[in-house]
Amino acid sequence: MNLNKNNFNAIKPPEHGGIPDGMPGIDYNNFMDFSANISPFGVPDGVRAALENLSGYVDVYPDPLCRRLRNAIADAENIPPEWILCGNGVSDLIWRIALTASREQYNRNQAALVAAPSFTEYEHALKACGKMAVKRYNLYPESNFYIKPDFISWITGDVSLIFLCQPNNPTGIPVRMELAYKILNRCRETGARLIWDECFLPFMDNPENYTLYHTLAAEPNLIILRAFTKLYGMAGVRLGYAICSDVDYLERLRQHGPPWSVSYPAQEAGIAALKELNYISSLRAFVARERPRMYQELKAAGLSRVIPGAANFLLFQSPVILDDFLRQKNIFLRNCGNFKNLDAFWYRASIRTEEENNRLVSAIREAMGRA
Amino acid sequence: MNLNKNNFNAIKPPEHGGIPDGMPGIDYNNFMDFSANISPFGVPDGVRAALENLSGYVDVYPDPLCRRLRNAIADAENIPPEWILCGNGVSDLIWRIALTASREQYNRNQAALVAAPSFTEYEHALKACGKMAVKRYNLYPESNFYIKPDFISWITGDVSLIFLCQPNNPTGIPVRMELAYKILNRCRETGARLIWDECFLPFMDNPENYTLYHTLAAEPNLIILRAFTKLYGMAGVRLGYAICSDVDYLERLRQHGPPWSVSYPAQEAGIAALKELNYISSLRAFVARERPRMYQELKAAGLSRVIPGAANFLLFQSPVILDDFLRQKNIFLRNCGNFKNLDAFWYRASIRTEEENNRLVSAIREAMGRA
Repeated sequence: MNLNKNNFNAIKPPEHGGIPDGMPGIDYNNFMDFSANISPFGVPDGVRAALENLSGYVDVYPDPLCRRLRNAIADAENIPPEWILCGNGVSDLIWRIALTASREQYNRNQAALVAAPSFTEYEHALKACGKMAVKRYNLYPESNFYIKPDFISWITGDVSLIFLCQPNNPTGIPVRMELAYKILNRCRETGARLIWDECFLPFMDNPENYTLYHTLAAEPNLIILRAFTKLYGMAGVRLGYAICSDVDYLERLRQHGPPWSVSYPAQEAGIAALKELNYISSLRAFVARERPRMYQELKAAGLSRVIPGAANFLLFQSPVILDDFLRQKNIFLRNCGNFKNLDAFWYRASIRTEEENNRLVSAIREAMGRA
Repeated sequence: MNLNKNNFNAIKPPEHGGIPDGMPGIDYNNFMDFSANISPFGVPDGVRAALENLSGYVDVYPDPLCRRLRNAIADAENIPPEWILCGNGVSDLIWRIALTASREQYNRNQAALVAAPSFTEYEHALKACGKMAVKRYNLYPESNFYIKPDFISWITGDVSLIFLCQPNNPTGIPVRMELAYKILNRCRETGARLIWDECFLPFMDNPENYTLYHTLAAEPNLIILRAFTKLYGMAGVRLGYAICSDVDYLERLRQHGPPWSVSYPAQEAGIAALKELNYISSLRAFVARERPRMYQELKAAGLSRVIPGAANFLLFQSPVILDDFLRQKNIFLRNCGNFKNLDAFWYRASIRTEEENNRLVSAIREAMGRA
């Protein structure tokens, strides 16, 4: 058989950030990946040690109920462990939510509401799982992609599921909390479930001011998503969780996917990560300092537009296509051409180390003839 | 909030084998788990080393296309890498197959065909994903749970999906190959897809005589499932794969689930496992010796019935309930009460080490008053 490995290896990865292993023509010893929104500090020491220690014990099935991990998260978050469902990354939970909704709404012609642009996996999962209509609330660069108060009028009686990312990916712009509470109120009236994705919340300067965590007990229709992936530099082991006070709903989500979804390494890495308080405080202080600096640097570089995002990445529009030029310098951005309401001139860059960030700015200046 | 951790920790795991971490009242330093069908030889040295080596690099997303791993499997199996789809354990692939089928058959009232008893996840996934009817072909202890030639007549025009496990779980009984080829022929006539689960095939004495691997090129409706989980003692990292010559269908399966399903540790562990040829030959020689010995020992112990299975586990019927008695000795069997056509007097025991196997037989004799 003709295996033709070169063609096989050159297949483009799915349309998300991150430069996967094994792509031809990439110098993996010397490349800078701004395309994935992951901590630039690498794997925390405690997580690394946990992974090394368990290597001899991975011959057993992981606990399908993730009890030790959920107890550890419950302690850290001060919530009951029953309110937590762990997943093989947040994407696993998004798919369970989409599948469960498509089954529960089976005989009703219901819809899901998403923002555009936002994380593309919400819409992908909804469309793959069922016949729910997907309604898009459009966000515009002129208003820095903020969601406006008219969002409430989109929560009509047929909307059973709403996905919002706080702050949004790829814009970095949060939902204003006055509006967030109005959305919650409206969901309580209509019975819609609000999927509130806080994957990037910990990178904000004042995350406690932008979470809906405190309303969980009162709002059983609220599902908060959180990830270990980005914050703890452990995207490779896949771990996220949903929090919801409707424990029957969480059990239905669990039943709508494979039983051993969260690997043993992921469970152990998660337990170890929760102890990495110094790592997190250093990382958050670094992002709080480096994000505004990069925002100013990118603005000064002469880009068409830089969005004042609040996460660990920045979205900007370039007057020229940057991909090939940067790739020759082993620098990779997330081209946002496959996001709704953006095009190939929009790029997302994560906050990396100071040195990497400076090299990115220099390369962008050079690409635009401003070096 | 009242966390009530004792009740939480005592929640029963889902209805599969395997004793998860963290269950109350279990002496984890000294317990014998016959309930999961995993290699008794532990984690292979190469897999352990691979997991230790990657611990500092898990801050990147895994390749969603698993290219290096698929190349390694392709080399080992002598098939094109394009024919391979990797999953977060075989259960991930079963769910993708069920979801894809429920979407593709959306407007047709089609059915899936499973054997009973068989791996319960087939039916669970089919029912959770869609409105396909699930037809059960019943297997009976009187004929040692063999599938009979009348199975062909069950493959009617409305059957679009057939799940068969070779050899079957929990019986250990294979489909006779004369019948297997007739099933394939019938599937070619009707257009049904045959999902042929070879998870336990490598534990058979002559696996090359019981595989449908050689027909893959000619039969695009054939999907073979294989697992690293059991054979390589790495159930904790979750890794399985599907092989099919219909590459468009494989791509649809990939699109019907989360993009980063297979973790970085799983991909690296898989690549390392494929080099463990000595581990596998020792393991297979051991099972070939120990399975018939255990079969004779269990028969001699006075059980009601012992099924002459061909895998790395044995199914038997006991005149008394064994669970509590064995549990006091820290011995765990898979009670088969939740399998269709079995009841709580049926048990599945995996082949463990010689010493563990002997302790199991002694304990069973004792439970039946024959010690």
